[in-house]
Amino acid sequence: MGEVVVVRNKQVILKDYVNGYMKPSDLVVTSDTTIPLELPKNDGGLILSKNLYLSCDPYMRNRMNEAVAGSYITSFTPGLPISGYGVARVLDSTHTNFKKGDLIWGFVNWEEYSLITDTKSLIKIQHIDDIPFSYYTGILGMAGLTAYVGFYDICSPKKGDFVFVSAASGAVGQLVGQFAKLFGCYVVGSAGSKEKVDLLKNKFGFDEAFNYKEEQDLDIALKRYFPNGIDIYFENVGGKMLDEVLSNMRIQGRIAVCGMISQYNLDRVEGIYNLHLLIFKRIRMQGFLVFDHYHLYPKFLDMIVPLIQEGKIAYVEDIVEGLENAPTALAGLYTGKNVGKQVVAVTRE
Amino acid sequence: MGEVVVVRNKQVILKDYVNGYMKPSDLVVTSDTTIPLELPKNDGGLILSKNLYLSCDPYMRNRMNEAVAGSYITSFTPGLPISGYGVARVLDSTHTNFKKGDLIWGFVNWEEYSLITDTKSLIKIQHIDDIPFSYYTGILGMAGLTAYVGFYDICSPKKGDFVFVSAASGAVGQLVGQFAKLFGCYVVGSAGSKEKVDLLKNKFGFDEAFNYKEEQDLDIALKRYFPNGIDIYFENVGGKMLDEVLSNMRIQGRIAVCGMISQYNLDRVEGIYNLHLLIFKRIRMQGFLVFDHYHLYPKFLDMIVPLIQEGKIAYVEDIVEGLENAPTALAGLYTGKNVGKQVVAVTRE
Repeated sequence: MGEVVVVRNKQVILKDYVNGYMKPSDLVVTSDTTIPLELPKNDGGLILSKNLYLSCDPYMRNRMNEAVAGSYITSFTPGLPISGYGVARVLDSTHTNFKKGDLIWGFVNWEEYSLITDTKSLIKIQHIDDIPFSYYTGILGMAGLTAYVGFYDICSPKKGDFVFVSAASGAVGQLVGQFAKLFGCYVVGSAGSKEKVDLLKNKFGFDEAFNYKEEQDLDIALKRYFPNGIDIYFENVGGKMLDEVLSNMRIQGRIAVCGMISQYNLDRVEGIYNLHLLIFKRIRMQGFLVFDHYHLYPKFLDMIVPLIQEGKIAYVEDIVEGLENAPTALAGLYTGKNVGKQVVAVTRE
Repeated sequence: MGEVVVVRNKQVILKDYVNGYMKPSDLVVTSDTTIPLELPKNDGGLILSKNLYLSCDPYMRNRMNEAVAGSYITSFTPGLPISGYGVARVLDSTHTNFKKGDLIWGFVNWEEYSLITDTKSLIKIQHIDDIPFSYYTGILGMAGLTAYVGFYDICSPKKGDFVFVSAASGAVGQLVGQFAKLFGCYVVGSAGSKEKVDLLKNKFGFDEAFNYKEEQDLDIALKRYFPNGIDIYFENVGGKMLDEVLSNMRIQGRIAVCGMISQYNLDRVEGIYNLHLLIFKRIRMQGFLVFDHYHLYPKFLDMIVPLIQEGKIAYVEDIVEGLENAPTALAGLYTGKNVGKQVVAVTRE
């Protein structure tokens, strides 16, 4: 038996539970620990991975809160690396479904190398022409499936519907808008900068887009783009925007509640005052989590891959290089610094 | 041709648009106008009615607000009688579907006699054994159909579901609770007095009931009756109760939004702070109006009439006598004075 190589393992550690806005300094990047680059052969079902791409997702902020009883999300543990969806290369495996050299996506720690004991979430991925592997952190991963389920199932779209998407240049929003256009809807998106608004109109083919930060009155903005009201609202932000959308919804409208990123960093969330309109307008408002819809993933892939290859769906990533830049990248998500899907490239193969 | 009899017509008039809590003095009962008790024979499609029973419904408060652009409800007109669902006897008719002596229910003005030109909402009713005609203002009318549609369609019930009904002794709530029990659910109701709580438990067969006014902390109260959470919330009140229910809902829960009576008299409605839980708990929240479901009325009657006759559904009315008492009865609805369905008997035949 040869000597086992042991290396330093760079990690992104949560210092402590976070209050208010997450700052890059709430995370610390260290190389204090080491990891052997080979698995013990007598333990079955393990994977040793070299992590390539990490996904920055809005819901991660909720995992930085101290756990409360009955919570529906598992908190990160201070002092340990945070985790999330990612793409990795199998360096070693004692798991029958995976072998050395395989490319996988699923839940991985924010670190260079991982010893993965809980392999339930892992899916083996194949090379597909014209598809970068980083796409599995987004369009071919949870963001893609979220947009797919959220739009086609939760929104119950009809051709000609007036669709509004908030945080529309984000990983999910950009796809929802394009799905809605392909479906024959009229689509307007909101985002937080001129660059993003240009992207929505010129790259993703939204009919209209606006910068919510430049609107003094969101009600007036919505009435400008939806003089006859909104049939479908794909909710990514919450707060004030939701309240103004409620008063601009049409009868029998549908609201798919995917996220409320504007609220995750607030100590006290904003109140919503227009819910009585659910009655008079007979609105259906439905929250959903992609985890309930994993079984649709193969069907989703069959649809999305040709659309990407034929250039019918555009996808924009915002990739930072190296774990050193991971804290800033993740914190930037909550202030809207990213343009497109925020990804951390741990290393380039 | 004989002389046409002309009589004084007692009416309940809205003085002016209402701000804040409706008071009995916002309405005035007068006999200033007269009405001929015979229709001109050359006008077709008219009905002259003698009004018998008037329904007091929570939504009526919203019709006392000044109309706003894009509103989904028609405001009452100050200086004219208010209107609502009622039961009436046809005194004269030039309408081919109705003849003198028929009993009808539908929209009628709050007055002794009405010349009805808009007959679209009117339905002819037959005598049914053991069913008082006043029931058409409630269990056999809009309240009944509302409970039927709301529970069976909007709530998507499953046997064994944990069901919570607010304003549970009201016209709709008492029926929803009984439908849920017949369906095999566990049902708890909230109401605003000991008398109502007793009614829920002893007359309507709710598994449990509580007086929300005696609970210092609604969250604790809900956890007491639903240690494992709520699958279905039938929402009649809104505000603080909704917020606390949201934090006690189970995964994949459903909220049928029927009304928000606690909010209708407030100048500024209460904010709702727990909507982010729609996501983590994958809750569907759906507003509805009975007007969209009229086509189910015959099917509903087929179900409800035998249940009443066989004593499997109980129904409690709170009837005041005479239009003089109508303003107090309607205002009492918003402070919870009524025990059971609030009805005004204009006259007893």
